[in-house]
Parts: sequence; C-alpha cells; structure tokens
Amino acid sequence: MVIYNRVALIGLGLIASSMAHAMRAGGLAGEIVGHAKSAETRAVALEIGLCDRVCDTAAEAVAGADLVVLCVPVGAMEAVAAEIGPHLAQGACVTDVGSVKQAVIAAVAPHIPGGVAFVPGHPLAGTEHSGPRSGFATLFQNRWCLLTPTELSTPEAVARLRSLWEAMGSNVDEMDPAHHDLVLAVVSHTPHLIAYTMVGVADHLRRVSNSEVIKYSASGFRDFTRIAASDPVMWRDVFLTNKEATLDILGRFTEELFMLQRAIRMGDGDELHAYFTRTRAIRRGIIEAGQDTAAPDFGRVAKPSGA
Amino acid sequence: MVIYNRVALIGLGLIASSMAHAMRAGGLAGEIVGHAKSAETRAVALEIGLCDRVCDTAAEAVAGADLVVLCVPVGAMEAVAAEIGPHLAQGACVTDVGSVKQAVIAAVAPHIPGGVAFVPGHPLAGTEHSGPRSGFATLFQNRWCLLTPTELSTPEAVARLRSLWEAMGSNVDEMDPAHHDLVLAVVSHTPHLIAYTMVGVADHLRRVSNSEVIKYSASGFRDFTRIAASDPVMWRDVFLTNKEATLDILGRFTEELFMLQRAIRMGDGDELHAYFTRTRAIRRGIIEAGQDTAAPDFGRVAKPSGA
Repeated sequence: MVIYNRVALIGLGLIASSMAHAMRAGGLAGEIVGHAKSAETRAVALEIGLCDRVCDTAAEAVAGADLVVLCVPVGAMEAVAAEIGPHLAQGACVTDVGSVKQAVIAAVAPHIPGGVAFVPGHPLAGTEHSGPRSGFATLFQNRWCLLTPTELSTPEAVARLRSLWEAMGSNVDEMDPAHHDLVLAVVSHTPHLIAYTMVGVADHLRRVSNSEVIKYSASGFRDFTRIAASDPVMWRDVFLTNKEATLDILGRFTEELFMLQRAIRMGDGDELHAYFTRTRAIRRGIIEAGQDTAAPDFGRVAKPSGA
Repeated sequence: MVIYNRVALIGLGLIASSMAHAMRAGGLAGEIVGHAKSAETRAVALEIGLCDRVCDTAAEAVAGADLVVLCVPVGAMEAVAAEIGPHLAQGACVTDVGSVKQAVIAAVAPHIPGGVAFVPGHPLAGTEHSGPRSGFATLFQNRWCLLTPTELSTPEAVARLRSLWEAMGSNVDEMDPAHHDLVLAVVSHTPHLIAYTMVGVADHLRRVSNSEVIKYSASGFRDFTRIAASDPVMWRDVFLTNKEATLDILGRFTEELFMLQRAIRMGDGDELHAYFTRTRAIRRGIIEAGQDTAAPDFGRVAKPSGA
C-alpha cells in the first residue's frame, strides 16, 4: 500500500535510514530519494542501497516529491528549508523529525510556499548509534510519534502523514508545539543533560581513574552512558533551541536534588526511603505501557538458570 | 569442587538468592543454610527450595558454617553481627555483600571473635528486582567483585573467598575500603540518587501528566527508571552510610551541571558540543571492557531487518 509516490529524505542519519528501511519493508513509498550534506554519508547510502536515488543537493532531491522529510539537526533546519522552498512541488507535504518543535516551526514555516503543507513531527525513537548504517526497519514499532500541526497543516496532510507513521509501526498523538517542548524537556532533554554531566564528572575526577569507572560501571553508571553516547551535534542543537523548557526543568531538578542532598547530610532516612519508594510506581507504569521490558537489566543479562 | 562445607546466607534477597543458585550450579558448597528476618521471605525460600535449610534465627544459621555471608542492608549489619558473633565457629570466615565498606567494617569488625576471619566484599552486580525470587545463577558472570581486606582478613581467608567468587563467574579485585567507597560514589551511588531525583521531578510536575511521562519515556527517561526502581531500604542505607563520598561527588556533579546550564543559557554551542563529544569515549570503553552490550538500546529493541 503506497502512501506517497515519492518521499525525499533530507539528512540520512539514524531516523532517516530507519524510515527508508521501514518504508521499503511496508511498500509505503513509490520511490525513496535521499540527500545528505556530507559526501561521505551519500557514498555510504549509495553503497548500502539505502535509497532508490541519492542526490547531491537537497533542491534536486525534493523535486517532484509528495513528501519531504527533514531529518537534519534542529540547528540546520532553517538553511535546508530556505534551499528547498522554491523547489517544492505543489500539493507536497513537508514534515520533520526534530526533537524540538517551536524552534523548528519558526525556522521552517517562513520558507513553505503556498500550496504546500507543513506538518511538524517527532518520532520518539532512537538508539545511541547514529549515521546511515545505524537504521533498522523496526525502530518505530510500538513507539510514539508526535505531530504538532500548525496553520500550514491541512487536515488531509495530517491524516496522510499519520497513516505513514502508523504503517511504520508507530502510535501517533497530536499535541500543541509548546506542550511538546515541555514534555520532551522532562522525558528526554533534561535526562540527557544529566547523563552527559554524570559521565563528564566521572571523566574529570582524578582520584578515580577512567579504567576504574569503566571496569566497575555495571553498578549503575553504564545505564547513563548509553544516552550520553548520543549524537553531540543533535543534542547541542536541542539544548540551544529548547532553552526555556530545559532550564525550567533543570531548575526543578536541582531543587529536588538539593532537598535529597540535605536529607543525606542530616541523616533523614525516612525522607529518603519515602522518596525512593514513590519512584518505583513510574517504572511499573512504563513496563505496563509496553515502553520497556520487565526483564532484569532491560534483558541484557543472561537468563535465570536456577530459579 | 566444594570450596566451603557449609555456607550460611544471612538475608535472602537478590544477591543471596543468586549466590545460592550459583553455588548450587557449580557444586561450590557442601550445604547452603539460609536465614531471613522476614517470615514471609523464609517461607518463599522454603517453597522454592532456595537453600538446603532455612533457619528461624541468624544465630542458628551460622552454627558450624565455615563461610557466613551477610546479605542484609548496610544499616542492619551491626545488629546481625552482634547476634551471630558468639555463635561463629572457630576457623570460620565472615564476609558481606554491602555496597559501602567503611561503615560495614565499623559495624561488623567489633563483633568478630578471635579465630574468625572477616573479609569484607562487594559484588558489583544487581538488577532492579529484589527479594528471594529475583536471584539467578549467572548474575555474577563477568562482573567484578571487590574485596576490601582489613586486619581481620588472613591471606588464606581472602584467597579462599576469592576462589568462591571466581567460581561463580566474577572477576575479583582487592581495594582499600575508603577508595572503594569513593569509587562506588562515582559509578553507583550518585547515579542512583540522580536517577531517583529525575524520576521524582517527573512525578511531581503538574503541567506534564504521569501518563504522558510513561507513554513518551522511550526518548531517554526510561533508562533512568530502571535504577530508580531498586530496593528503597538498601539505597536509603547506602546514602546514610556513604554520606561523605556521596556529598563530595554530588558537589562535583552540581558544579558541572551549573556550568552546562550556563552554556545553555548563554547559547554556547561549542562548549556543549565539546562536552558531549568527550563522553562518548567512556561509553566505548565500557563496551570494550565487556561491561555492557554494544547492541542498540542495550539489545532491547528488535533486530535490524533491512540493513
């Protein structure tokens, strides 16, 4: 069931390459055209046959496409939008996969010509790997994709894009762009910053060597390092463009951390125990909602042999 | 190859039950005797045949044992040591599995009678699950176990305990107790406190609902919730007894977090990018050291089908 006759992927990293595999697997696109700024990335895409065609410019890639997906870091959206704007086909739909929505809308919307729809989107899926070789067809299975329609989003364009994401295995929600940015600051942006910071602290500390940190990481630290290995350019742009919401949630975080730090200093075991007990319920909710595995250590340990 | 004729496990949670399974699987103990303070835990241990015998008191369990393993929360070590001290067999060895070493040594050593060795230990292995049903024989495979010998540790007792941990699949290192507590504050205690805090912030925030947090957790947050689901009593005791090192590392953490927060506020993308790039190297080191999987998302996602 072909949903779009020609899909242009601009940027060929983890998300775009996973979309290419998923659209192929489901027969969802008549033709998949790709472009990446880096010649090396384009060469890899050609070598592994990621797209039907790989174009040297974004303008060339979007010509005649009925869906254009902007898969570049948030900070690169404006330049790409400005380049492709004059080359978009009438009746086409432009979407994106950026982790921040208000900044992307501000950057892209001015470049969308009349007769073209713009439906901002954000698939909540990813791994710690990046680049054109990192994609796989099942990345979006049972993951949420958030669409944040604007005045440039026609109901028809939203419905058609929704059907693409659903066909790639996603659940789709629609949300106000500002609320999206706040929700993501809580569930993604602040956790990433904290993980980066904790890994950085371990790296800087001279009294404990890096080889000790690495050897003994199974006691908790390694869970932080997965997200702290994510693409630095993507994350730099996220923090620069979702500044207000991230600083807001960071303020809440340090406030609560100081409260717990004080409880440790004062020896208030009841306070600590009560806090640590409440957080278990959220973990259970995530497992029940099918957003993580209940297996110990996310299933990465060997299976029980004695019990 | 029997290493100890009779092993007494005091406390029957995740670590003790995993030791029971691992010792059985390897034929490492002539007899495994267990005790837990809770009648319910003892009943479960009996029901699932976790030990050869389950005793109603710790004093009874240690009688005639040549290895006694204290597997209770750090805050309960002193009371247990005081109870079993008079009942320990001459030539026996007492060890523990507590996450903090200086406090355990201070609590336990005064109760060790002459002719009995005390070798503090800490297996760096665990999952987010707890209780007598949560153990499995392979928990310690390729994980580190740290021994922190004191003046009550004879070379013979250390060597024999080392051979037990190695036979259960662990790598064994010896370390000064104070250094142990600092290293663990970095790789385990502070990461746990931070994860608890982030999950608590999400729980308290009214503008984003818990159901939104749960639905959209795959974007990073869920990695934090695994360790924030760990046993609250164990973690309360860890923070109360490794107070100095935890507060020290927390101070470093907030200092660096404020530096990154300022970079976000000032729009300093170069600073952020440089920081996020350095942290990737630590992740690679952990994977190369065999302490985590290189598979995307710790291997919890479906396998690539297109690439």
